[in-house]
Order: sequence, then structure tokens, then C-alpha cells
Amino acid sequence: MRRTSFRKMHCPIARSLERVGEWWSILILRDALHGYRRFDEFRDSLGVAPNILTARLAALVEAGMLEKRQYSAHPPRHEYVPTQAARDFRPVLLSLMAFGNKHFAPEGAMVEVVDTRTGKVADIAAFDRATGEPIAAPHYAMVPGPAANARIRKRYTRRDVEDGAA
Amino acid sequence: MRRTSFRKMHCPIARSLERVGEWWSILILRDALHGYRRFDEFRDSLGVAPNILTARLAALVEAGMLEKRQYSAHPPRHEYVPTQAARDFRPVLLSLMAFGNKHFAPEGAMVEVVDTRTGKVADIAAFDRATGEPIAAPHYAMVPGPAANARIRKRYTRRDVEDGAA
Repeated sequence: MRRTSFRKMHCPIARSLERVGEWWSILILRDALHGYRRFDEFRDSLGVAPNILTARLAALVEAGMLEKRQYSAHPPRHEYVPTQAARDFRPVLLSLMAFGNKHFAPEGAMVEVVDTRTGKVADIAAFDRATGEPIAAPHYAMVPGPAANARIRKRYTRRDVEDGAA
Repeated sequence: MRRTSFRKMHCPIARSLERVGEWWSILILRDALHGYRRFDEFRDSLGVAPNILTARLAALVEAGMLEKRQYSAHPPRHEYVPTQAARDFRPVLLSLMAFGNKHFAPEGAMVEVVDTRTGKVADIAAFDRATGEPIAAPHYAMVPGPAANARIRKRYTRRDVEDGAA
């Protein structure tokens, strides 16, 4: 189905999509981070065909996002436990959730993050842990990293984080 | 290619993926937010087949993420301008970039966000604009929203943001 591998693209977004960009994979990670562990739990939650679920779980294990653990020897049964990499994916899911609530939930939020002390809905944004400031121009900019190739250097020359704004 | 529509799922993540989850769409949004506007620019950046690019651009216009504007009458030529919804997608891209750099860039970062005042690489996380605090337990929790159905209520009962941690 996929026409092109993103794996060799010199872009961290493309490489992440290569590993976890398939839609079911993202929803499986969502469920794994909510405590779902077993094949049947994922299947029931997602309504996904078993053969697809088997393939997606194997790919997530291969990508280092889930660890497959045997929890019963007789009969042999396995569960899928999120790794640190999966937990590091949580900000992506939180951002997707905030985005979906804002733009694709005309009937209101289906799930949201709240401040447990006040009950207020969190206004989720990306920020820098080092400074506690939001990632925005002019104080933050995207720049080529140490491993950038010529194409990346061209793409990110003189563009800061807010340059996409119309 | 898609077996299931995520549109009716009662989850803001699934609904976002329905609109922008196709891999090319996410990379097109990445490029649009970097200032790319014209068909040829996207094609050259992505190396994507023209028929696929045409379909993806149309889907992003349909989803309200890009606005199609005529910039030349003779010959007729259009450009694609990111909307506010596209700009609201930026935290998802920033989170994906941080994740990709951390886990799928063994040779080092290809692109990164830096603090322009210090040159330091930003340590990107999700936070609450209202409090300036990171989204993490015990002060933040995912809860069913006003539009949650029974399945969502079951999923998010007594689970806080960090419950996925092993």
C-alpha cells in the first residue's frame, strides 16, 4: 500500500511516521498508554481485524515501541507493554487530542485533559522544559541539526518556527 | 486502502487522523508551514507522484487545513496557503520532530528547535498555557468530555495521564 519508504528521508517527522505513522499504530499506542495490554483488549477497543492487529503489534514491537511479554505459559499468552519510547510518544498524542478537540469535535470534546486541582480544561501547547516558555518565534527557531544534509539545510535556512503563519 | 473510517470514532485522536493522518498529508502540512505554497514546490520537496499530491492537497483543502488561492489568471495557477487549523497542527509536528530526533536519528538530529537567545536545543514537551506546567500526573488527567459516549467514559474512567507508564 505504501509507495515510498520515509525511512531514508532526512527528517525526524518522516522517520517517525515510517515507524508509527500507520493509523492503527497510533491508536494502538493510544490504548497501550491507557493501560491496555492484551490482544483482545486492543481488538475490542479498536474494532480492527485480527490479522491487521497482529501485523501492527509486531511492527510496534519491531520499532521498539512495545515489549512483548509472556504472562502465561500454559497456554502461552502474551501481553504488549509500552516502552520508554512509547511513553515519549505521549506528547504527540496529547497534541493530536487537543487539535482534534479544537477542529473536529463540533458536538464538543469527547475526551480532554483537565487540571485536577481546578477542573479546568488544559490549553495544551508545546514548550521548552529548559525555559518553561512556549515554542514560538522569535525566541525559538527550527535549524538544521548536526546530521542535516544539503536538502535539510536549504529547507531550514532563515525560517523560524512561525514562518508558516499567513 | 483504508479499511475503516475513523471519522465516527468517539476520539479526537482518531478524528484528527481521519483528516490528516495519511502520511503524505502530514509532510505536506510540514512543508506548508515552512512556507511552501506551490504544487511544484511540494512535489520537489517530497518526491511524491503528482496524482497522489493532487489528491492529498484536495483532501487538505476539504479538511480546512489549506486554502487554495489563485495567484495567476493567465495561465490559471493556484497556491496552497495554510489555514489557522494548519497552524494549530504545529504542536503535533513539533512533538513528532522531538520524538523522531530522540528515537530514530542514530546519526544525530537532522533538524531541531533551538532557543535563539542561547543556541540551546529545546527540550520540547506538552504543557498547559493556563498554568505554565507540564501535562503530567498527578496535576493533569484525561477525562471524558461533554460529548463522550459510553465507550469513552469506560476508557477514561480512573485513568490519569501517566497511567500508561510501566
